[in-house]
Amino acid sequence: MNNELKTARVETLCDGIFAIAMTLLIVGFADMSQWASVTDDEQLRKLLFSMWPDFVYYVQSFIILGAFWIEHHHQFHYIKHTDLKLLFINLFAFIFVALIPVSTLIVGDYGHTRTAAFLFEINLLFAGLLFYIHWRYASGKSGMLSNDVDRKTIQFYSRKNLVIPIVSVIAILITFISPQIGSSIYFIVPFIIAMQRGK
Amino acid sequence: MNNELKTARVETLCDGIFAIAMTLLIVGFADMSQWASVTDDEQLRKLLFSMWPDFVYYVQSFIILGAFWIEHHHQFHYIKHTDLKLLFINLFAFIFVALIPVSTLIVGDYGHTRTAAFLFEINLLFAGLLFYIHWRYASGKSGMLSNDVDRKTIQFYSRKNLVIPIVSVIAILITFISPQIGSSIYFIVPFIIAMQRGK
Amino acid sequence: MNNELKTARVETLCDGIFAIAMTLLIVGFADMSQWASVTDDEQLRKLLFSMWPDFVYYVQSFIILGAFWIEHHHQFHYIKHTDLKLLFINLFAFIFVALIPVSTLIVGDYGHTRTAAFLFEINLLFAGLLFYIHWRYASGKSGMLSNDVDRKTIQFYSRKNLVIPIVSVIAILITFISPQIGSSIYFIVPFIIAMQRGK
Amino acid sequence: MNNELKTARVETLCDGIFAIAMTLLIVGFADMSQWASVTDDEQLRKLLFSMWPDFVYYVQSFIILGAFWIEHHHQFHYIKHTDLKLLFINLFAFIFVALIPVSTLIVGDYGHTRTAAFLFEINLLFAGLLFYIHWRYASGKSGMLSNDVDRKTIQFYSRKNLVIPIVSVIAILITFISPQIGSSIYFIVPFIIAMQRGK
Repeated sequence: MNNELKTARVETLCDGIFAIAMTLLIVGFADMSQWASVTDDEQLRKLLFSMWPDFVYYVQSFIILGAFWIEHHHQFHYIKHTDLKLLFINLFAFIFVALIPVSTLIVGDYGHTRTAAFLFEINLLFAGLLFYIHWRYASGKSGMLSNDVDRKTIQFYSRKNLVIPIVSVIAILITFISPQIGSSIYFIVPFIIAMQRGK
Repeated sequence: MNNELKTARVETLCDGIFAIAMTLLIVGFADMSQWASVTDDEQLRKLLFSMWPDFVYYVQSFIILGAFWIEHHHQFHYIKHTDLKLLFINLFAFIFVALIPVSTLIVGDYGHTRTAAFLFEINLLFAGLLFYIHWRYASGKSGMLSNDVDRKTIQFYSRKNLVIPIVSVIAILITFISPQIGSSIYFIVPFIIAMQRGK
Repeated sequence: MNNELKTARVETLCDGIFAIAMTLLIVGFADMSQWASVTDDEQLRKLLFSMWPDFVYYVQSFIILGAFWIEHHHQFHYIKHTDLKLLFINLFAFIFVALIPVSTLIVGDYGHTRTAAFLFEINLLFAGLLFYIHWRYASGKSGMLSNDVDRKTIQFYSRKNLVIPIVSVIAILITFISPQIGSSIYFIVPFIIAMQRGK
Repeated sequence: MNNELKTARVETLCDGIFAIAMTLLIVGFADMSQWASVTDDEQLRKLLFSMWPDFVYYVQSFIILGAFWIEHHHQFHYIKHTDLKLLFINLFAFIFVALIPVSTLIVGDYGHTRTAAFLFEINLLFAGLLFYIHWRYASGKSGMLSNDVDRKTIQFYSRKNLVIPIVSVIAILITFISPQIGSSIYFIVPFIIAMQRGK
């Protein structure tokens, strides 16, 4: 009983991190150093238009974080008990979730470089794999999930949690040819998740 | 059942984003570069007085975020189940909610330019429209709202959720004449919402 | 029923703002521009020692935010229903709560000037008064508090909510003589609150 | 009854501070001034590799915050009632929790200096001691813990809450010889906690 923690607080903490990570995605826009030279309407319009890649990556990362949040949500819909190991897997996943604003910022500014694209994609690969490991561990240990979960549901969510890792591997391969395309293909994630629903 | 997520976590996540967006509104004041030249009482007083438009826009955006929060609150008072589509509409709404601190910062510094005013108003227009679409979708699909909601209540909240989009359209029109007035008329939002209560 | 909102979400939102405001108090330390010149152990030690007023104001503001949080906590222990007016009073209070990190930052850097001290004290005066008004409104309107609250309890918390406004008025008066002492007397707030418990 | 506050809100506030402190750990990476000189792939790769100590300290501090969070979680699993003194001990603990992003930032940049290492270790020592005091106070006062807690459990968690203070004292001693090793030994914390489980 010592080690069974209420899942409610895990959810509160993680929802907090998700909410902050989503909101900190704006940091890229708020960098004031580039604003110093703006004095009139024309210059402001030009600066804003030059920031459209930042906006595209902002929207994409918001959606990715949303997809992770939905995965986390689904997992804890079934997980009834946690242990120390599960908590640490969860914690490691969020080490990479909390980095998403940083790697988004970098890919927004240096999207044409392979280094920035790889950084962004490896960040998401690790976060995605840890979410997958989290679900495998929870579903593999008896008594962690609620009783009414059948094998099919477990496999369904295993596949769901593989979407972001697999898309990340594809993204990394594409990046060798085009960093910009590689780091922008995550827009398909919600469509894949939506398609999986039908099963 | 897979896709029915507890609305409790949607509320926790969104309250988190609201809380952070409200608090990040202060970023405009915390920009330290402009403080570097301040050394005495007189200069500090002058700098603070020169920041009054930032303060006015800060208060206005806080109230707008509060109005969105109350709308969200009301919607989830009636919404009992969510599906993936509703979650993504919600997510898209918060992409624009999380941008409010940025567009407030810009309109605070460049409020005399049309570009900044338009940016701020379009941001709020999109956020407002997505809240409206969120409510229309939830109320249009059978089984999402709790059973005791009648048509009148649904229409009442549809009108309520149109307040910010309509004010935004008016603001955009006014901005062609005066950017400052256009981007400052959101102060009337709480009064309109309060008047609607009587019905 | 439309306008009676669950107090649970008000508490979630406000706890979020408190948590962020408390954590953003560190912004004063994280200002990297002053770190640029530091290269060795000696210089770092000197810089850190020169930041002790920041640390003192940091601790004080953390305690003040904690005191506001406890007040808010106590109020919503008794408040069972809200209406739109109460929500807006609450919102206005948090406009000033969210400003505390900014005015702390300024008083930490310019504590020797009257302007910075007044700014900090007026910020707290307004936040405190709005918490007081919030309680007066909630306790004055029938049906908002839970039934088992007697007049004595209401008056007890009215006095409690006057502590910060009264300390702020005293602080403003002292600031005419010494800005540093004036803006540092809030350390007595927890002791006054603790003494009031006995009644 | 006045002074017995629902522990639910203490948990919400503290989970919020934990979530924000964890996410603000990235501030060290987001410092844009060092990015200004980066224009191509090569330079970006070099800059990122030069940031590996920041990353190591980031991961370590995330884990430390996670360990504190688990401790807090365990404590409030048993604590059923709070009083004003316990709330203030808790508040003081979080004054030091909220400082962790700052001291991590400093130790990430100046890890080779004793001053930075001491700052980081003293920060954790104080946070850890206050968590320990928090548990001692709660378990020492009758009626605060739930009835079914036996002496053994109380002592088990007393030892658990001593892990970070003791590791901090060892870290401080090591720092006299090597600041980098001293400030990096907190990686053993999860292993010690995991080993304690067996008892």
